[in-house]
Amino acid sequence: MDKTELKVLKKIKPSKIEQEHVEEFLNKLLKISAEVAKPFYAYPQICGSISKGTWLSGDHDIDLFIVFRKKIGRDELEKQGLLIGTTICEKLNGTYNIKYAEHPYVRVKVRDFEIDIVPCYEIKRGEKIISAVDRSPHHTLYIKENLTGYKVDHARLMKYFCKQIGIYGADAKHNGLSGYLCELLIINYGTFERCMKGISKLNFGDCIDIENLLEKKEAREKFDDALIVIDPVDKNRNVAASLSPQNFLRLKLEAIRYLKTKTFPVQKKHAKNLLIEKLKDKRGTDFAGIKFKPPDIIPENLYPQIRKFAKKLAKYLKENDFSVLRYFSWTDEIKKAFIIFEIENRRLSKFKKKDGPSIFSKEVNNFLEKYIGEKYKPYIENNKFFVDVKRKFLNVETAIKHFLKENKNEIPKRISEKKIRILKEEE
Amino acid sequence: MDKTELKVLKKIKPSKIEQEHVEEFLNKLLKISAEVAKPFYAYPQICGSISKGTWLSGDHDIDLFIVFRKKIGRDELEKQGLLIGTTICEKLNGTYNIKYAEHPYVRVKVRDFEIDIVPCYEIKRGEKIISAVDRSPHHTLYIKENLTGYKVDHARLMKYFCKQIGIYGADAKHNGLSGYLCELLIINYGTFERCMKGISKLNFGDCIDIENLLEKKEAREKFDDALIVIDPVDKNRNVAASLSPQNFLRLKLEAIRYLKTKTFPVQKKHAKNLLIEKLKDKRGTDFAGIKFKPPDIIPENLYPQIRKFAKKLAKYLKENDFSVLRYFSWTDEIKKAFIIFEIENRRLSKFKKKDGPSIFSKEVNNFLEKYIGEKYKPYIENNKFFVDVKRKFLNVETAIKHFLKENKNEIPKRISEKKIRILKEEE
Repeated sequence: MDKTELKVLKKIKPSKIEQEHVEEFLNKLLKISAEVAKPFYAYPQICGSISKGTWLSGDHDIDLFIVFRKKIGRDELEKQGLLIGTTICEKLNGTYNIKYAEHPYVRVKVRDFEIDIVPCYEIKRGEKIISAVDRSPHHTLYIKENLTGYKVDHARLMKYFCKQIGIYGADAKHNGLSGYLCELLIINYGTFERCMKGISKLNFGDCIDIENLLEKKEAREKFDDALIVIDPVDKNRNVAASLSPQNFLRLKLEAIRYLKTKTFPVQKKHAKNLLIEKLKDKRGTDFAGIKFKPPDIIPENLYPQIRKFAKKLAKYLKENDFSVLRYFSWTDEIKKAFIIFEIENRRLSKFKKKDGPSIFSKEVNNFLEKYIGEKYKPYIENNKFFVDVKRKFLNVETAIKHFLKENKNEIPKRISEKKIRILKEEE
Repeated sequence: MDKTELKVLKKIKPSKIEQEHVEEFLNKLLKISAEVAKPFYAYPQICGSISKGTWLSGDHDIDLFIVFRKKIGRDELEKQGLLIGTTICEKLNGTYNIKYAEHPYVRVKVRDFEIDIVPCYEIKRGEKIISAVDRSPHHTLYIKENLTGYKVDHARLMKYFCKQIGIYGADAKHNGLSGYLCELLIINYGTFERCMKGISKLNFGDCIDIENLLEKKEAREKFDDALIVIDPVDKNRNVAASLSPQNFLRLKLEAIRYLKTKTFPVQKKHAKNLLIEKLKDKRGTDFAGIKFKPPDIIPENLYPQIRKFAKKLAKYLKENDFSVLRYFSWTDEIKKAFIIFEIENRRLSKFKKKDGPSIFSKEVNNFLEKYIGEKYKPYIENNKFFVDVKRKFLNVETAIKHFLKENKNEIPKRISEKKIRILKEEE
């Protein structure tokens, strides 16, 4: 490790005292969990960074899996999982929330720990999974076996690196790299430095297959993501599937920058702030947008729905001749959600020039019949007909309003148009 | 002839007294011309409407051709032509100007007559012409032989019809129908009414070949004009070559209108006025333009040069993202010339969105290398790269100014850029 790496590691690696504090708690947690789970023929297993020893200082999030045998039904699994979770919480003197992903689970808060207690099925490696989380224990096992010695610290550096550039997390909000993916990259490249070098040379669509589970060609046919990293415990899964092209690019560019400067990236302000920065920057563009209360759904569904909504609205604006440069969406997940469009012009001229047929085409008579009664007659330039047709919308707000009113079925369900407010020009 | 036709004819057909007045003058002119031309082994011939009896009341323009034998040289023809023309003028007590078309000729004014005295070669029909005007005597002859009796008045109606819609004249200013073409159309269709019907059904690229001189296929391969009318005295010439597509369309639409309403069209105000009308009409568009003193060249060259200039400038504006709906040019031929563009937006945003390669393309690295240093980084939408690039011009006036300064070689010679002024927004 070089100087930069050591300096960063010193900041992010938990101290001996912090490690002991966590271990002590884990032991207690495992003991209680095993007792609570036993009558259900289930057992606890710690997954995630904490179990793999790759956690960063201050990050005390624990994934506690309650492993059930395959023969119990899905309903039973969910019911018993919740019962076990809430009982554990009680015994720890914590507080809990019920959360929903593919199935419900319990989030417990005790002191400075946050524990997700998630029921799953016990399956053998390579076997078909039953619930979405059944793979996690195998991931933990694979990392424990392969990420050893000094590599653990390199994985910490990699996670911190991604966190700093805002792409840590495979969830719908971040569309970035999971902790597991960071660990796999270190296993693949060996050290943080070599990992940076490797990433700097990656191209879109490249494939990393540590265990050589697939033919290159086969992998590329199977996945069309920005980056393909074959899951060592399941060759049919791309661990990097949730990494968006934009974030893959960011990772690559930051790796290039790191190799040049040997300084870790500094956390950036939020996209909304970036936008305001741009506004101030006199790009000569206009902005338009909407604001609404986000529906009460889990982030994993909320973010994609807002993005889908933004994309549809952007498409609609483009179809109506508003030239959309970029668009952004943002939400605090609870009270506010914004979709903001950067457009070339807020207002359009009343008419636009529409192409007609060549004057020698057979379409001429149909064309003339259609447009000759209009106020502005068809005209000819370079042996081709043109006609000035009225635009449907002259104003971006009118266009948005119309979309919200007339295209209700295009708005993702649960984002009710009633709550949507069009932002005023000065907002 | 129906009532409408008779009523119009009464207005446009010269009265007996006017006809006698013209005939008397023609006799005198022919007598003097013959005397003056004789020593040069040449003879006079009246061509044009007057000789064909198709002239309109008040129109006393006479085409006097001085026909030379083929053996004299071009220089001699021009010199002797000028000498004969000026001598005739002297004998008539008139005033004259020297005019230049393909070769110089003399324009004489005497009382209410304007006489163009034009030297030409005597060639046999079908023989190759030497100077551009050698065909005219044959045209006159053909019309005299084929446009007889009542048809003469129908030709008058046709000419008046074209005059009213502003497309009479094969010259560069009008890009319309020559008198000869009007006469041929009446010969072809028989009457004014049938001519209207025929024209209403014509399509772009249609061919009229009165004497069946060419195969249809051959004619279409030879000419790619809006309308093809094979010259009965020269099958290699399209009499309608100078009729612009726009004016052909106008003729056709006015013919359709005439058949419906049985009223002659009323002369329209000038394009510039039409433009102002549109301005007032709130099309929501902007206007930009230039003003200059037209160069001192004959109209036959001036109009095409101004139009070419306008077209080049329009192309340049479009290339720089100004959305040009239409453009107009106008000149009084002496003091003022205008080129005016109707555009969607006078001002553009500082940046525009430029397409980059697909993220999976081999071009990605070149693209990134080119744009990654820019202030606004490339971004990805739907697996495709985009980048915001700065526009060269944000303002239409700046773009025009730049064109005038940097693209001097694109400006037709003799329209000196020194005289060109950019119109202000309120003009």
